[in-house]
Amino acid sequence: MYAYHQLLSFTENILKKIGCPEADAQLGAKVLLSADLRGVDSHGVARLSGYVRLWEAGRINANPKLKIVHETPSTAVVDGDKGLGLVIAPQAMQIAMEKAEKAGTGWVSVKNSNHFGIAGYHAMMGLEKDMIGIAMTNASPLVAPTFSLERLLGTNPIAVSIPADKQPPFVADFATTTAANGKLEILQRKNLEAPYGWIQNREGAQSTNPHELKDGGALLPLGGDREHGSHKGYCLGAIVDIFSAVFSGANYGPWVPPFVSFLAPPADPVGEGIGHFFGAMRIDAWRPKEEFKSHMDNWITRFRSAKAIEGEKVLIPGDPERDMEAERMEKGIPLLAPVEKDLKELGARFGVEL
Amino acid sequence: MYAYHQLLSFTENILKKIGCPEADAQLGAKVLLSADLRGVDSHGVARLSGYVRLWEAGRINANPKLKIVHETPSTAVVDGDKGLGLVIAPQAMQIAMEKAEKAGTGWVSVKNSNHFGIAGYHAMMGLEKDMIGIAMTNASPLVAPTFSLERLLGTNPIAVSIPADKQPPFVADFATTTAANGKLEILQRKNLEAPYGWIQNREGAQSTNPHELKDGGALLPLGGDREHGSHKGYCLGAIVDIFSAVFSGANYGPWVPPFVSFLAPPADPVGEGIGHFFGAMRIDAWRPKEEFKSHMDNWITRFRSAKAIEGEKVLIPGDPERDMEAERMEKGIPLLAPVEKDLKELGARFGVEL
Repeated sequence: MYAYHQLLSFTENILKKIGCPEADAQLGAKVLLSADLRGVDSHGVARLSGYVRLWEAGRINANPKLKIVHETPSTAVVDGDKGLGLVIAPQAMQIAMEKAEKAGTGWVSVKNSNHFGIAGYHAMMGLEKDMIGIAMTNASPLVAPTFSLERLLGTNPIAVSIPADKQPPFVADFATTTAANGKLEILQRKNLEAPYGWIQNREGAQSTNPHELKDGGALLPLGGDREHGSHKGYCLGAIVDIFSAVFSGANYGPWVPPFVSFLAPPADPVGEGIGHFFGAMRIDAWRPKEEFKSHMDNWITRFRSAKAIEGEKVLIPGDPERDMEAERMEKGIPLLAPVEKDLKELGARFGVEL
Repeated sequence: MYAYHQLLSFTENILKKIGCPEADAQLGAKVLLSADLRGVDSHGVARLSGYVRLWEAGRINANPKLKIVHETPSTAVVDGDKGLGLVIAPQAMQIAMEKAEKAGTGWVSVKNSNHFGIAGYHAMMGLEKDMIGIAMTNASPLVAPTFSLERLLGTNPIAVSIPADKQPPFVADFATTTAANGKLEILQRKNLEAPYGWIQNREGAQSTNPHELKDGGALLPLGGDREHGSHKGYCLGAIVDIFSAVFSGANYGPWVPPFVSFLAPPADPVGEGIGHFFGAMRIDAWRPKEEFKSHMDNWITRFRSAKAIEGEKVLIPGDPERDMEAERMEKGIPLLAPVEKDLKELGARFGVEL
């Protein structure tokens, strides 16, 4: 078990060692660790050495100059200059929020970036400013559209954060697949079978083998199969891909470069890096703030108090992650043995103590 | 089989008979019939007598004065004055598009409306102006959130339309449930069982009985159950509900009034009528038009040519509906016997020949 602040300063120090300016290292570490705090272990400090390897491969620029390359009163396209997605994303969301101050809403599409941590962090930036926040990103192709044998989409998450008053905010943050890749990784490590509806094999048949992706298989869009609406999950993943990358000039579909440094990016790119999409809407662009928030409180209270299946309760999006954050802030963050080993080796290489 | 123009002018004449101004009757008929053309029979002319009954019950105002009650450069809240959703929705989308002309994007939330036909029609309005179009609506509660025994959400559809160049546009239009209510109605009529994952019974257990909703059952969010990501479908339905109704001041969640006139609206409304949400984004708010469109062509071409499961092909969202529209425009629109009978009775009452 590691204290949050211990992992935070470790990450910050590593990012400084690879050449990130102090402020970027602080921001990037905070974004990365927000995943561990919220229980999304696959997207947190476990990925730190992956980012370092991308930097070593020359695919991450530790000291980027973010540029707005196109804009209107409510939109901007941002060139992330190959920077850490962990740093470019919150800066782009900041631009969306500044647009929203003036125009009511702000929308930013980003190219030339890479993995940005958890979408929820960026969406939740709106909360302090009484704004609805939206964050999406495309990702390297692991998902087969309905009827496809090829992997053409990433797990392409969507996060939406909506402020309330006395109630905690509504925070949805989910992959547009039946199950996030992180859940599959857990099954792989434990050698457990996956439920039907999560993955298909190389022939396009449903499979319960969590290792199927190494053998030409694919994750399935939310819905799982056509009869259960996988074309809807495919639509969602496609919308995220287009908003993030066709809007901005990033790579889309099968051209999205992989996160892992040992796989080369496609030789025929259709854009630059990976793409993200952010939105910010002032709640008072819709209704007076107090009125908006009191109705959100009413919405949340009504749903949370719904009559539930025995032994269960109806959750509000964001409830489980908030509970986890409170617990891990107090008790610390558990690391799996291989992650701990990996971080210690990383620390030793850069002269940073874990 | 009825010719499109025959059903269109019948609908237009009925709408004039209930007091719609000529232009509204034309627009409303066009929107309603677009569902029949696109093969969404549950949302087309089969509902015409339902709208008339709502008008008879005093719940639809045939001659509404739509009002903008709140706005910023990129947003507006519209009061639909209890008008036909079929007429209020395209007018609200028009406002979103006018905002987008100036601000790059435009976003409109609507209260005091009712059923607006198919979401896809409104989203596709953007195509002529080289805009991305977005349309959503809440609807009367038929859907149980994950673990809920109560029905708290509608089938709350999302439509997103994106222009391309030589390729036809990308048009996604889907309910945020595993299966749309219209699909269930087909099974009910034919007395066939539903697949697991579509519905639950009054105790919250999965059921294959398509009549379960009459006995306290519910439709399930996209995903079907927790293991297959139903919490994601619940998030999507909730986002549509909040954007459509908490933003605008319409009724949300279990307070949304029913479409059928024989069920009274809840006695304790939290807003006015049902709510919709529309978005318009100029494609040149992102990139030069030709560049945007050529990348959309490339996206569409790549996905459509993907290697597919034997006997199937990878579709682009909007493909099946466009094929259906071409076919029905040429060969006519089939009506089920009870729908035909219902329309003939409606025509006889109002002195309009079918």
